[in-house]
Amino acid sequence: MPNSNDTRTLAKDERRFLRDTFGEGDALFDAESTCVFGADAYRNFAPPLAVVRPAGQEQVRELMAWAQKVRMPIYVRARGTNVVGSCVPRPAGVVVSTLKMNRIIDVDAEDFVAVVEPGVITGDLQKHIEKQGLFYPPDPASVKISTIGGNVATCAGGMRALKYGVTREYVLGLTAVLPGGEAIHPGGRTHKNVVGLDLVRLLVGSEGSLAFISDITLKLLPKPESTASLLVGYVQLEQALSAARAIFAAGILPAAMEFMTRETLAAVGKVMTAPWPDTTEAALLIRLDGSRDALAADLKRLKNVLEKTGPASLDTGLGPEEEEPLWEIRRMINPASYQIAPDKISDDITLPRAKILECLVKIREVGRGAGLTILTFGHLGDGNIHVNIMHDASDPQERGRAVDAKERVLALTLSLGGSLSGEHGVGLAKAAHVHKQLGPVERRLMAGVKHAFDPLGIMNPGKGW
Amino acid sequence: MPNSNDTRTLAKDERRFLRDTFGEGDALFDAESTCVFGADAYRNFAPPLAVVRPAGQEQVRELMAWAQKVRMPIYVRARGTNVVGSCVPRPAGVVVSTLKMNRIIDVDAEDFVAVVEPGVITGDLQKHIEKQGLFYPPDPASVKISTIGGNVATCAGGMRALKYGVTREYVLGLTAVLPGGEAIHPGGRTHKNVVGLDLVRLLVGSEGSLAFISDITLKLLPKPESTASLLVGYVQLEQALSAARAIFAAGILPAAMEFMTRETLAAVGKVMTAPWPDTTEAALLIRLDGSRDALAADLKRLKNVLEKTGPASLDTGLGPEEEEPLWEIRRMINPASYQIAPDKISDDITLPRAKILECLVKIREVGRGAGLTILTFGHLGDGNIHVNIMHDASDPQERGRAVDAKERVLALTLSLGGSLSGEHGVGLAKAAHVHKQLGPVERRLMAGVKHAFDPLGIMNPGKGW
Repeated sequence: MPNSNDTRTLAKDERRFLRDTFGEGDALFDAESTCVFGADAYRNFAPPLAVVRPAGQEQVRELMAWAQKVRMPIYVRARGTNVVGSCVPRPAGVVVSTLKMNRIIDVDAEDFVAVVEPGVITGDLQKHIEKQGLFYPPDPASVKISTIGGNVATCAGGMRALKYGVTREYVLGLTAVLPGGEAIHPGGRTHKNVVGLDLVRLLVGSEGSLAFISDITLKLLPKPESTASLLVGYVQLEQALSAARAIFAAGILPAAMEFMTRETLAAVGKVMTAPWPDTTEAALLIRLDGSRDALAADLKRLKNVLEKTGPASLDTGLGPEEEEPLWEIRRMINPASYQIAPDKISDDITLPRAKILECLVKIREVGRGAGLTILTFGHLGDGNIHVNIMHDASDPQERGRAVDAKERVLALTLSLGGSLSGEHGVGLAKAAHVHKQLGPVERRLMAGVKHAFDPLGIMNPGKGW
Repeated sequence: MPNSNDTRTLAKDERRFLRDTFGEGDALFDAESTCVFGADAYRNFAPPLAVVRPAGQEQVRELMAWAQKVRMPIYVRARGTNVVGSCVPRPAGVVVSTLKMNRIIDVDAEDFVAVVEPGVITGDLQKHIEKQGLFYPPDPASVKISTIGGNVATCAGGMRALKYGVTREYVLGLTAVLPGGEAIHPGGRTHKNVVGLDLVRLLVGSEGSLAFISDITLKLLPKPESTASLLVGYVQLEQALSAARAIFAAGILPAAMEFMTRETLAAVGKVMTAPWPDTTEAALLIRLDGSRDALAADLKRLKNVLEKTGPASLDTGLGPEEEEPLWEIRRMINPASYQIAPDKISDDITLPRAKILECLVKIREVGRGAGLTILTFGHLGDGNIHVNIMHDASDPQERGRAVDAKERVLALTLSLGGSLSGEHGVGLAKAAHVHKQLGPVERRLMAGVKHAFDPLGIMNPGKGW
């Protein structure tokens, strides 16, 4: 095991190795230039011993061979959009930024694959391939700023997961460099593959704990011709959830089905003119996709279903331009939330669908008990609810109530058969809670799997399970 | 490791344990009653030491505790539809039939999950849930006779994989009983879950090599309102492949896109009246699904695309009744193949899509060189091609040519960046070839993962990687 305290420093020859391998400009040591690599969007900080920026596979292999030899903790990261502290270098170690490994190596409109380095921003990749009529569905909210490497490491989800599934479903193959420097290439360019154990999907979502993922082969789909969206407001929360049920019962599987409850609507209402009446308790934001004529038929059908659910408002957008204002509302949730309080504890619990209403009502009670506003919104379609506990962290007493509220929300989630995370992962934020969801035998197996990849425990230690 | 020779016999106390645990009727020992459990559809046989039929979780745990203690190889199976010999009990051990564990425990139209025991026939489950407007997409050709446990163990694919993905995408959670009798319950009823390493997908497709999967929680979708199918014939193979490209380029992702080349069409033509002209070199069989009105629009659009590809014939079926004769053709391939020769070696290679034409042409050359008819057909959409090398195995010289042709096809597949199996798995049939696809480090990692689950190597030994 690496040193689990933070007293480790970089020996002279260790520093020399990093400088020689990566060059002056891409091996950083001083606190001023390394400190921004010590935190991610979870805002928890630990000082990196060094930051290096490999430019290609060969440097990655050298780094990983060296790290194993000197038992140096390795923290792979890109844009640091992770919200659970998965990128925080604690215990002390070397942070590896993938941002110089940002080539789109290949996009093949016949094979329907893209081969990319981990530092490519997912939104950039999407724009690039969509010009060729190709489509990469996973769309985490961070898609414009997060990288594909991070998306793969966390098995990122997003709005379109309802119809298209999560990142896991789109990784056909990858190169992973193990501690010690050996590289494996499980999977490949074929859309199906069942030869041997599924190392590809084992690496997807492993939060940097097994190996350094140094290139990724993604499955692409034909790009649907068009999209259409609906924003539907209800004066009762129950109505919104009944509407979701009615949509599914009609055999409709939307590309996305987001929702916001009254606290979230109120926050958004503070930063923009809301298209829903004041009495609105919950809103659904639904997107369909498909070919233009089929979409028109589907939209009509969906509206017929929704009109029977007693909506207080119904706005429709046909095609990206008309839809944009509706999705702008969804994107405004995060900035708007800070109108409520300066700090948040955010969770992305996931529930069996039938338990969503009960959970939302009880989360509201938790907020009331704590004297805090809790925003709930997210991916209703797959039961993945974002819970933002708004508070002022500079008030220790309020911070304590917020932390306590988080504990209650997580306990509630597990009592309803839910999962502590649907797409963010464990990181530091949930490390102390994992044993409540995973049994000791499961965790022992995970440790055994980890040991097969990383026997000395140098890959992103201190996180996860 | 268990004895790797086949000389092991059952000790008296071992026999007694099995009889006491499962009762007279469900612990079989004599050759007459156990012999049918010694083979699967691969038609390779090894005599079981015993066959037991657990009726529930408790018996499974007792069995697995005992098996670990006495280092007894355990071969879990159901209907034995496996075509690569994954169910063959060699080295000698105990075969466990899951056919008495065939309860549909729960179908929940709100959660959109089904909880089932492994012995449920997948087609029966589908019929059962479709009555409630629910949909379980994976549809291996064996769906009416194979079980969900086997489908999970092999990560079964099927026709609808193109649009809906494979079995892996639908397993939300499961119970797995480890050697030693401990049970784990990774995953659950939530549609998303990223807490810890992905043990669920590691078990899916593991071909019985890690643990006994004793119940399964499946993700369900809303059932599409209707379906439509097209059968399109071409006088050139290239045209059929161009047509597939044109469909994708138009942004259409069919639910299924099957194909048959001339050898397969000729075989089918021997057992039924073919709807295509004699000059047909290749045919595509395409299915769309969706709501009725959208489907009409999509079908029109698809026809517009296809009319520009110069088809020699085009038959359409709207709704299950009209479609049935078209899909009957697809189902007739297997029985029709025996009109060509009494035996087959079958493979399910998978290729990067752009390599399909080259591969088909070269497989034909392999057949010509061997003086054998090779049928090619299958899941064009995801590059998963079934290759049936027809021959008369009673002629040793012809059998030799068939075996040699198989070697050539597999080498060709790998040279084109393909995979040895898209959905059948490795089993016995490909065990000797796996090292050509998987590198030594990958195989070492797989062995490490296996060791974490099954340290004594009692789970389905002698197969796989």
